[in-house]
Amino acid sequence: MTMPEAVFVTEVGPRDGLQSQGAEVSTEAKVRFVDALSGTGLPRVEVTSFVHPKLVPSMADAETVMRGITRLPGVVYQALVPNVRGTERAIEAGADELNVVLSATERFNQRNLNMRIQESVESFRSIHRLAEGAGKHCEIGLAVVFGCPYEGPVPITQVLEVIDRVVDAGAEEVLLADTIGVAHPQAVRAVVEAVRAHWPALTLGLHFHDTRGLGIANLLAGLECGVARFDASVGGVGACPFAPGSTGNICTEDAVQMLLLMGVETGVELETLIDCGHMIRELLGHDVPGRLVHAGSVASAFVAAARRSDGA
Amino acid sequence: MTMPEAVFVTEVGPRDGLQSQGAEVSTEAKVRFVDALSGTGLPRVEVTSFVHPKLVPSMADAETVMRGITRLPGVVYQALVPNVRGTERAIEAGADELNVVLSATERFNQRNLNMRIQESVESFRSIHRLAEGAGKHCEIGLAVVFGCPYEGPVPITQVLEVIDRVVDAGAEEVLLADTIGVAHPQAVRAVVEAVRAHWPALTLGLHFHDTRGLGIANLLAGLECGVARFDASVGGVGACPFAPGSTGNICTEDAVQMLLLMGVETGVELETLIDCGHMIRELLGHDVPGRLVHAGSVASAFVAAARRSDGA
Repeated sequence: MTMPEAVFVTEVGPRDGLQSQGAEVSTEAKVRFVDALSGTGLPRVEVTSFVHPKLVPSMADAETVMRGITRLPGVVYQALVPNVRGTERAIEAGADELNVVLSATERFNQRNLNMRIQESVESFRSIHRLAEGAGKHCEIGLAVVFGCPYEGPVPITQVLEVIDRVVDAGAEEVLLADTIGVAHPQAVRAVVEAVRAHWPALTLGLHFHDTRGLGIANLLAGLECGVARFDASVGGVGACPFAPGSTGNICTEDAVQMLLLMGVETGVELETLIDCGHMIRELLGHDVPGRLVHAGSVASAFVAAARRSDGA
Repeated sequence: MTMPEAVFVTEVGPRDGLQSQGAEVSTEAKVRFVDALSGTGLPRVEVTSFVHPKLVPSMADAETVMRGITRLPGVVYQALVPNVRGTERAIEAGADELNVVLSATERFNQRNLNMRIQESVESFRSIHRLAEGAGKHCEIGLAVVFGCPYEGPVPITQVLEVIDRVVDAGAEEVLLADTIGVAHPQAVRAVVEAVRAHWPALTLGLHFHDTRGLGIANLLAGLECGVARFDASVGGVGACPFAPGSTGNICTEDAVQMLLLMGVETGVELETLIDCGHMIRELLGHDVPGRLVHAGSVASAFVAAARRSDGA
């Protein structure tokens, strides 16, 4: 088991983090938040979601946010799109890449997206065609890979079968998501190894929630299997962290700190990233589960020693 | 890398968790807390600390707590002892095993214990002799193994040198502690492998704080190197979790949930353990960083599926 030399981090705080709390944050603050994030060296930021404003009112300002941000060269500004209409809106507003969510189980897909998986696959095919025409890359965020609240455990064969369909429909990047926080390191390795065995050239990423405190251990397991990209949110935001059953993403700065200590390149400036954690805590007006916001980063002497591999 | 088949968990919440907060918890509540913990199937509970009451006022009720608990067969009731006088008190009060803290660096040892390391080693030798006479087992908790707030990075050779001295003085069990939360999975593996190479028969354990969110990833790395025991506290308590720089232990129930999903035996009944997390949250009167107290355990269907190794 060895870590990749470099890892690609996608910050999903402005979308996944804020989608249940975005109503508390003004459009102007969201723009400032995205701009702060893109200034950290993060290679990709999920800016917003072009869902129907009636379904997710907190994302009703998607166009204004996407148009209001200051573009930095080298940063990919991604948006979530649920369908062709959302894709048209996202392309029109200037999103660089599109993230399409689809589920590994029929019942979750039905409840979350109101479609059968095959309908979602066909919808993705249309989205992909549209995006391709506009020169945009499409990612699939595959929900409930490690377990479904309605169907329970999800066999790996079923995950592979759904990936097979989305790859056929044009997906070049798939993010395996533990939507309800039931993954564990062994399961992560099993799924990652199976997917890589079937599609060695597919760009694979991980999307963990820290619902039960295993997010960073699951990330470690996945990275050590050779996955070199993951989603995270600064502060670990996502729903109210202290409400029963609420689930934030893994915390970007905590994960980046781990990678820094392990000598893995992310291109991210850690202190600036921690500042973004403080920023979102202030914008939300309540505490966040991430730890570096509270403890601060590891002193640079430890990082230097870790890089010398003297075991400090 | 494979996990051990069974792991020995020591609950340190009543001591490490409460030593900075114990003043808020009544003696009677501490007794109830220890009794609840010993009823979960945990094999060892660190009950209290026989330090000087003037130095740690929250542990001034050590005798009363140790004498007040209801002993369950099969559970080891451990106490921290700083010196010979504390050892006499602990033995007199009925502690089963004694935990002696010693540091991997001179400056931390001086600040924390007001002695040079060699003085601490000689003190341990006396403690060990006394304990042996009373038929009690002694553990060494080795502080700042992964980094010191005063000396910075700690070379592995220095850690080995200190372990050499405590083994010579009679230590049969050593717990490697990341006192200030600067360990990372790679460092854990490096230290564990070096220690095991030198003392294959030494009983080795891990003691992590989740200061920077890497506690459970560090635990995973250590267990996968073959270590089969660790310390943790229910609720992840230890100092105020939301105060800047404060540092709780890794959360017992979150760690046990991971092991349960990975098919590793702990003997602990998870739901009863989560109840203890709720209990300490109520006793402290503030929230705790552990996640299962908020999210609940993973549904049993997922555990059953994980045990069938179908990757769910």
